[in-house]
Amino acid sequence: MRKIRYGMVGGGAGGFIGAVHRMAAALDSELELVAGVFGSTPERSKAFGTTLDLDPSRVYGDVEEMMAAEAALPADERMELVSIVTPNHTHFAIAKAALEAGFHVACDKPMTNTVEEAEELCRLTGETGLIFLVTHNYTGYPMVKEARERLASGEFGPIRKVIVEYSQGWLSTLLEAEGHKQATWRADPEKAGVSSALGDIGSHAHNLAEFVTGHRVAQLYGDLGTVVPGRRLEDDATVLLRFEGKIRGILIASQISYGERNHLRIRVYCEKGGIDWCQEEPNRLRLTHQDGTETILNRGGEHSERARAFTRLPGGHPEGFIEAFANLYRSVARTIRARTGDADPDPFADDFPTVADGARGVHFIHTAVESSRRGEWMDARYEPPRGADGE
Amino acid sequence: MRKIRYGMVGGGAGGFIGAVHRMAAALDSELELVAGVFGSTPERSKAFGTTLDLDPSRVYGDVEEMMAAEAALPADERMELVSIVTPNHTHFAIAKAALEAGFHVACDKPMTNTVEEAEELCRLTGETGLIFLVTHNYTGYPMVKEARERLASGEFGPIRKVIVEYSQGWLSTLLEAEGHKQATWRADPEKAGVSSALGDIGSHAHNLAEFVTGHRVAQLYGDLGTVVPGRRLEDDATVLLRFEGKIRGILIASQISYGERNHLRIRVYCEKGGIDWCQEEPNRLRLTHQDGTETILNRGGEHSERARAFTRLPGGHPEGFIEAFANLYRSVARTIRARTGDADPDPFADDFPTVADGARGVHFIHTAVESSRRGEWMDARYEPPRGADGE
Amino acid sequence: MRKIRYGMVGGGAGGFIGAVHRMAAALDSELELVAGVFGSTPERSKAFGTTLDLDPSRVYGDVEEMMAAEAALPADERMELVSIVTPNHTHFAIAKAALEAGFHVACDKPMTNTVEEAEELCRLTGETGLIFLVTHNYTGYPMVKEARERLASGEFGPIRKVIVEYSQGWLSTLLEAEGHKQATWRADPEKAGVSSALGDIGSHAHNLAEFVTGHRVAQLYGDLGTVVPGRRLEDDATVLLRFEGKIRGILIASQISYGERNHLRIRVYCEKGGIDWCQEEPNRLRLTHQDGTETILNRGGEHSERARAFTRLPGGHPEGFIEAFANLYRSVARTIRARTGDADPDPFADDFPTVADGARGVHFIHTAVESSRRGEWMDARYEPPRGADGE
Amino acid sequence: MRKIRYGMVGGGAGGFIGAVHRMAAALDSELELVAGVFGSTPERSKAFGTTLDLDPSRVYGDVEEMMAAEAALPADERMELVSIVTPNHTHFAIAKAALEAGFHVACDKPMTNTVEEAEELCRLTGETGLIFLVTHNYTGYPMVKEARERLASGEFGPIRKVIVEYSQGWLSTLLEAEGHKQATWRADPEKAGVSSALGDIGSHAHNLAEFVTGHRVAQLYGDLGTVVPGRRLEDDATVLLRFEGKIRGILIASQISYGERNHLRIRVYCEKGGIDWCQEEPNRLRLTHQDGTETILNRGGEHSERARAFTRLPGGHPEGFIEAFANLYRSVARTIRARTGDADPDPFADDFPTVADGARGVHFIHTAVESSRRGEWMDARYEPPRGADGE
Repeated sequence: MRKIRYGMVGGGAGGFIGAVHRMAAALDSELELVAGVFGSTPERSKAFGTTLDLDPSRVYGDVEEMMAAEAALPADERMELVSIVTPNHTHFAIAKAALEAGFHVACDKPMTNTVEEAEELCRLTGETGLIFLVTHNYTGYPMVKEARERLASGEFGPIRKVIVEYSQGWLSTLLEAEGHKQATWRADPEKAGVSSALGDIGSHAHNLAEFVTGHRVAQLYGDLGTVVPGRRLEDDATVLLRFEGKIRGILIASQISYGERNHLRIRVYCEKGGIDWCQEEPNRLRLTHQDGTETILNRGGEHSERARAFTRLPGGHPEGFIEAFANLYRSVARTIRARTGDADPDPFADDFPTVADGARGVHFIHTAVESSRRGEWMDARYEPPRGADGE
Repeated sequence: MRKIRYGMVGGGAGGFIGAVHRMAAALDSELELVAGVFGSTPERSKAFGTTLDLDPSRVYGDVEEMMAAEAALPADERMELVSIVTPNHTHFAIAKAALEAGFHVACDKPMTNTVEEAEELCRLTGETGLIFLVTHNYTGYPMVKEARERLASGEFGPIRKVIVEYSQGWLSTLLEAEGHKQATWRADPEKAGVSSALGDIGSHAHNLAEFVTGHRVAQLYGDLGTVVPGRRLEDDATVLLRFEGKIRGILIASQISYGERNHLRIRVYCEKGGIDWCQEEPNRLRLTHQDGTETILNRGGEHSERARAFTRLPGGHPEGFIEAFANLYRSVARTIRARTGDADPDPFADDFPTVADGARGVHFIHTAVESSRRGEWMDARYEPPRGADGE
Repeated sequence: MRKIRYGMVGGGAGGFIGAVHRMAAALDSELELVAGVFGSTPERSKAFGTTLDLDPSRVYGDVEEMMAAEAALPADERMELVSIVTPNHTHFAIAKAALEAGFHVACDKPMTNTVEEAEELCRLTGETGLIFLVTHNYTGYPMVKEARERLASGEFGPIRKVIVEYSQGWLSTLLEAEGHKQATWRADPEKAGVSSALGDIGSHAHNLAEFVTGHRVAQLYGDLGTVVPGRRLEDDATVLLRFEGKIRGILIASQISYGERNHLRIRVYCEKGGIDWCQEEPNRLRLTHQDGTETILNRGGEHSERARAFTRLPGGHPEGFIEAFANLYRSVARTIRARTGDADPDPFADDFPTVADGARGVHFIHTAVESSRRGEWMDARYEPPRGADGE
Repeated sequence: MRKIRYGMVGGGAGGFIGAVHRMAAALDSELELVAGVFGSTPERSKAFGTTLDLDPSRVYGDVEEMMAAEAALPADERMELVSIVTPNHTHFAIAKAALEAGFHVACDKPMTNTVEEAEELCRLTGETGLIFLVTHNYTGYPMVKEARERLASGEFGPIRKVIVEYSQGWLSTLLEAEGHKQATWRADPEKAGVSSALGDIGSHAHNLAEFVTGHRVAQLYGDLGTVVPGRRLEDDATVLLRFEGKIRGILIASQISYGERNHLRIRVYCEKGGIDWCQEEPNRLRLTHQDGTETILNRGGEHSERARAFTRLPGGHPEGFIEAFANLYRSVARTIRARTGDADPDPFADDFPTVADGARGVHFIHTAVESSRRGEWMDARYEPPRGADGE
């Protein structure tokens, strides 16, 4: 089993998500970091690259240089995949450059700052036939897979109601005025785009809800607000939802829910069953029954084949955020390996969020922002341009 | 300490809430059931009365008879308080009769089916100077008192966001078509009024949110729906809220959240603190802190004087629903006793929901229903007529 | 349904358990407090009696006076049951006097300070045919009943291991040196007997384990210790157990587990199932399954007929300590009523701990203390004298 | 930062722990797997090695071959560390061979099957000055570090009582009779040594308790039993403990606690504080307070410098078993790198269990087995031979 070679853009000193991507890619020893641009100046990039034990000649000063130099390497040396972990506003240009240079892409979310950019990436992905992962990482958890499988099996009957909530409290103060790096770009419309709370975390909640239920949001009503004085984007949002089939829904995204850490939770109520999953206790999946009895499925038990395929440890040995994230990278690596004939296809390897999911997320953010501006329900149905998903 | 004598209307065979009121009134031996109308026919009333070891001459055939006969008894024998535990549409006439006959009232919620009726009860209460308890019982929990005290103290700074949720699943099927007594009247607009989910449980959530925060709902946007086919009233509701001071809020009330028992939970996020209380674990109050640390206050600890005044047992000895309900009755009993000179005033005895709270609840239900019908935000500010609260 | 008349000994100002007994007896309106000795002097007794709205002529100065005066009253007026809520060392004499005067008894635990006294009460109870309740109240919880029913049904196969733990922290300091009333007598061998931790709470754990499993302790090895300097009795105890059938067990009782409130928990592991119940979350019963799945039974669901018979509220409406305690009193009241021909027998009314359970508890305490003294395993098999249990 | 090169013995097809070691070593990209013996025959070893993308010339047929061949490689190519993940009875010979060949060692627990072997490894480690990690991995969790730091700070006063429990249920049936690979060697005295439950998991509990408290077990009383008929070693054990300073303790280890997954929990009660940590919710640390209030520290908060040094993700992003395991490998890698002058010393890099901890674990197992055999308390004080810990 050969390792897939990848390069990274972003993720240098002071960041958080770059290190997460590297750990996720390293965990299973199925990928290998071989190149990168790790800073906004060549000096910073080089300096950080040395901490990663990389070949110095493959630590580049900028994206253009990386794409050109890597493309010029022999096919069995050059990177195959580019991981993009920069602020939102730069995703588009980097992803476009990578696709055009013939590299597969793993891109952080939200994928782009505009729907137009998202659609261009969809078209490019379709045209090139390359793989495009968007790291809506929460769908990588085994018990999220199990939730989807259970709902899809029909055992609970039709879905009736969805409550998905993503509450954080870290932006309860005007951190962006204090030079906090993570906060500063997220609160800056030039970089974060039209939204803060929905863009940064609401899009995860949206993706999770569509993934778990297998249904798409059809209409929405956004109620966005800026709670912390001086902030330029919304930091608290409620979005009323109607999924296809008139399923009722509520999406809550907040960055000012004081003291909440990373409270992403989804509940789905059906005609004959209910499901409850919370990211801070990711190894558990609660099923509700009509007499008030609850079943707690613990990861590692006798779950669906799909859930088990994304599980590494026996029950009682907690898996966490990195393992879920690693499931995305591992699926991409296996998909690439099957394409290059280095391995048989893995039946579950296509189970990662793609450029089309990314475009749906961007469209959702913009629709919710616009709905809130108008004070009206809006149609949220959306199909990204053909060519997406490699079709 | 003499016992306060009370009579009951409703609460006969097959009911649930009548027995709760009787246990709540009995718990502290501060009230005594002396009279009642326990059924829709004199026979049923008599039959049930005998199971309660009451003087048969004080088990009446109808409300009119009870009011007249009790009023004719000597002052130190006749009932002082009437407890009304019948379906919603009958509350008004019974409460009016009780007030006009000079009796204090304890009335189930929602207090009436129309705002006009609610306002007439406010005026009557004000004119007569009688005590009027509306059993929004969830404010009787000691840790709910503690939550209010903490928020009122200012230690957490201004409130920013409120999420209050009351989810049940018992109406996930069309129980009212199967002759289920509790379901049948709750789903019948003639009896339940304009709303099912909001009327039955959403009004509790509204009351709890205003009680805990000390702030009133100023605007709202209702999104009501009927999920179970064939049902005549809404069984699922989301209400977007703005409290005074632009505090953002969400109220969720649902009777079709499959498998949920009695999930009433309130979270309040402030500038420098957060509070989380859940009715199914009522002895705990969670406080959140900015670094993600949580403090769990367990009932029986070193809480506010007010919380301790409503606590009966040391920590670790769970109190429950009946104890919270009993706090309402005990406060009313002590208030009556202070008025009749039988005891010194209890400094915390005025801490129960009154006719004005009842009217606010009725107004809230109607405003949310109307908002949902119109698809518009509506002004929810409301002050019941003067004379309420005995002023 | 007539109310059973009872008198109380103890439970005056400053106590805790007397008020609990009164609330438990009052909850269902099936008993009525008619008499009492509420203090160590006639003055104190009288003073406290007035707070209870009792007939002053039936608030007595001492036990002897109460027994004589009540026995002299007409049969349909005098008390039928005596509730004993005094410190341990006085239980015996009061209970003996009550039985000899022809009154049923409800006695706090541990029932007596010596095995000899316990056996005398067994014999007296047997001879008189009176009812003798010992308030091992934790078996009154519905989910404890459910646990026993499940284990008795055989669905889980033979029991293999039992862990029962009762940890408190309130005696982490030498409270008895500070004049703390509850601590002072519990730490005084003249009053509490040979044990503090095992006597006060370990005996509950022992009773619960035998009740839930339906098996009796056959051998034990006690490891008792006094942790707080200056204390005269043990405040921390571990007892290794073998139940009949060589079932392995561990009993932990501690009063110095800093910060623990009233942590009584029992786990039973069987060949094909496991059960877990914790008193601080009494409405839940956890069942374990071999693949790591857990089932949470919530009180109010579709449980055994017996569990439902001791349940008052629907699921999600928490019941607590007082409701469980009330189940003991209600069962006794119904048993008395059936004997006097005032009601049909209740099929579940014999479900309360008796004088024989009390004697078993006292024997257990003494055996564990002696085992610890000797450093040897001891035979713990014990059958109280015939005549117990009204046989 | 150069990667430390390691080889592995064991961990081939069908195993669990080998994959865990590889993921733990890979997570931070600070180590690199370069060699191995992955099966009991050269064919199996080679076959498995190819799945790992290793240089085929460095996938060896047996340990002897690996040691010789690697030692013959240039210093900057050959492996530096040998990871031993085979059944217990083979640890000694492999570790000895590795040390004698000049390689650092990472060895699974229990380190050896006899105290004599353990001591020989201590002496060899001391003589060679090599690094010897024993993977008592549970001490790698950040909140376990935090617990130790809190206790060491003295803020809670002297420790009084320790309860450490490690309950599993996977051996509730005679799996070893069904050809279950993991069960078969663990239940075979020739391979597992004198103990099953204590050896496999009880030794982790012992190590955790000594680590967290900073105190060593001084006396013990073992109560071991074999519950499943036909099993050759004990599958359930209770060990009463006295730590230095007469601290009371209980250690529970069980493989027949039906339905329990991997329930390792430690509670420490002090004079002025209490601590509670459970491996299945490893990101939380509960502190108890005398009024019953609890503080929940969530990983990622404002903890001790040491706890933060072993944390990778912000609060609310769960870390799990692999991350904790990775902390051991990362510390070893950093220690090696500092020795070879490739990096500055990491102030926390010596924080991993060593050959001396391994020897203490082996001694504990044997003492508990012997105590149970004799039915006597035994002295458990033990100091491994000088030379251990590289001193």
